[in-house]
Amino acid sequence: MDFQLTVLGSSGAVPAWGRFPSAQVLRVGHKVYLIDCGEGAQMRMQQLGVRPSRIKQVFISHLHGDHILGLMGLLQSMSLMGREQPLTIFSPPGLRQMIEAFQQALSGKLRFDLQFVALPLNAHEQIFEDGHLSVWSFPLKHHHMTVGYLFREKVRARKMRPECISRYQIPFTDIPAIKAGSDWVSPQGQRLPNTLLTKAPPPLRSYAYCCDTAWEPKIVPYIAEVDLLYHDATFSETHAAQAAETQHSTARQAADIARRARAGALVLGHFSARYPDINPLVEEAREVFPNVWAGLDGTSFSLDFRSKTLSVTGPGRELVWSGG
Amino acid sequence: MDFQLTVLGSSGAVPAWGRFPSAQVLRVGHKVYLIDCGEGAQMRMQQLGVRPSRIKQVFISHLHGDHILGLMGLLQSMSLMGREQPLTIFSPPGLRQMIEAFQQALSGKLRFDLQFVALPLNAHEQIFEDGHLSVWSFPLKHHHMTVGYLFREKVRARKMRPECISRYQIPFTDIPAIKAGSDWVSPQGQRLPNTLLTKAPPPLRSYAYCCDTAWEPKIVPYIAEVDLLYHDATFSETHAAQAAETQHSTARQAADIARRARAGALVLGHFSARYPDINPLVEEAREVFPNVWAGLDGTSFSLDFRSKTLSVTGPGRELVWSGG
Repeated sequence: MDFQLTVLGSSGAVPAWGRFPSAQVLRVGHKVYLIDCGEGAQMRMQQLGVRPSRIKQVFISHLHGDHILGLMGLLQSMSLMGREQPLTIFSPPGLRQMIEAFQQALSGKLRFDLQFVALPLNAHEQIFEDGHLSVWSFPLKHHHMTVGYLFREKVRARKMRPECISRYQIPFTDIPAIKAGSDWVSPQGQRLPNTLLTKAPPPLRSYAYCCDTAWEPKIVPYIAEVDLLYHDATFSETHAAQAAETQHSTARQAADIARRARAGALVLGHFSARYPDINPLVEEAREVFPNVWAGLDGTSFSLDFRSKTLSVTGPGRELVWSGG
Repeated sequence: MDFQLTVLGSSGAVPAWGRFPSAQVLRVGHKVYLIDCGEGAQMRMQQLGVRPSRIKQVFISHLHGDHILGLMGLLQSMSLMGREQPLTIFSPPGLRQMIEAFQQALSGKLRFDLQFVALPLNAHEQIFEDGHLSVWSFPLKHHHMTVGYLFREKVRARKMRPECISRYQIPFTDIPAIKAGSDWVSPQGQRLPNTLLTKAPPPLRSYAYCCDTAWEPKIVPYIAEVDLLYHDATFSETHAAQAAETQHSTARQAADIARRARAGALVLGHFSARYPDINPLVEEAREVFPNVWAGLDGTSFSLDFRSKTLSVTGPGRELVWSGG
């Protein structure tokens, strides 16, 4: 099953150098979760082959324009393309009023229902789960009420060893209990331990989105051991004062958080328009944490099902890197 | 002096095939006028080297999302880039309320003043003039209150023939009156006719924007003899029923309006997402009117100062065509 992050927009507040404002999709199996929705997100989806009809949940970090101004256009296009299934939008409080006011002014009703979930601020809580994922939100450190998100695969059932079924003639009706962890007792009274009959499921994969935040070690427990971390890297260390003033982070600070959280890999984003070239930010971060990538528009990061090996592909789907 | 239209977005309501929603800029000399502002307009400006700081007036055709959803992002970026000069936005009534509600919700004040001008509907009126242009609005035929715009160079003064100044020893203080059309009487009482002393100014150039309209011959008098006409061509004739139902036009209908108006050249736009290839629409229109172009994103149309020769350049600024 896929577990793939695709960056739709990697710019800070002002788009520049071909970088669009913040938006990304996480694909888990056939499900697509949209995370932030800056201006142009729907155009990037088209470029990159992301189908909006697959999206059922949207996770918004905060109500700054560069994270939400693509929502109205996306909702309108979904409606014009005939969507009827509801869409749920998670965000800090206030988004419902904005979207509804705009919809009224545009005098165009959507064909589908919007469900808004106003998130608890200053709390670390599970806010959503479905068959694939559980999602947690937690507070970041930014001027505006801003949350981070942790997406974690759900605990999967152990897998039956198929050869055991025929060898011990286990009835199919007993298999769910075995997958759930029970031992099995044969009609002859022989107890077979669960570890003999099943294999452990592949390790769970996780992704954390921490965009628009100052350096804040308090978030480390919320993202501990995360496989893939996207972190605000608006500035380089040469502009550390601006980072502090605007409550954003430097690339080096992002790497420090990744190191403290023992993350598997770090993706930098939300780049300031002052940097035409992001490589110096990546280099700066790699001095602190080894596995760092620039999350430029169109870049995808996939975690392998069994090994959690990371594969990085560029906008043309060319493989850039693959490693443990 | 330049007179150049650059298309930033050529798609209908749903962006597709690399086409962004409606937006374009008209450059006249060093001035830049923004016409509609669909989502992604600011990103297209960056791609195409259009500086937002040059824009002082915005002309919005109507309050549908695909014509205005780029405004909030553009205004925010202008403010973040330090703009202090005011911006005037012309549109049908209601835009001020939408923008102000959104600005309040985003809790970010702009550094510059916005001036809104709510246009008269169902009227053909001059709504603006500056040193270069006069701009007229007029009603189109669309579900929502929608206006077209005519941009016309202002009547320029006649030009002095420099050789006459020395030959007749004309004092410089007399020159403004001569340029304004007066004859000149020498100290000896000799009357020199204005046509001897001056040359006619180059012909005036004009551009009309008629986006989102059904076929409506009533608009022909408002755009008669226009040099360059941009007209709704959402559909091909094979989808004429959809065009009628949605109050849009087919490419052939656009050409019919251009022919009736005796326009110099026709630019097609607002293309439906159902057409990956626009060439059949251009071919269909050329059966009715010869000088037809697809106004795809990044295409520019320049009218020469003296001859009104049209030059068409593609997104990479490569010359596609030049002719009378």
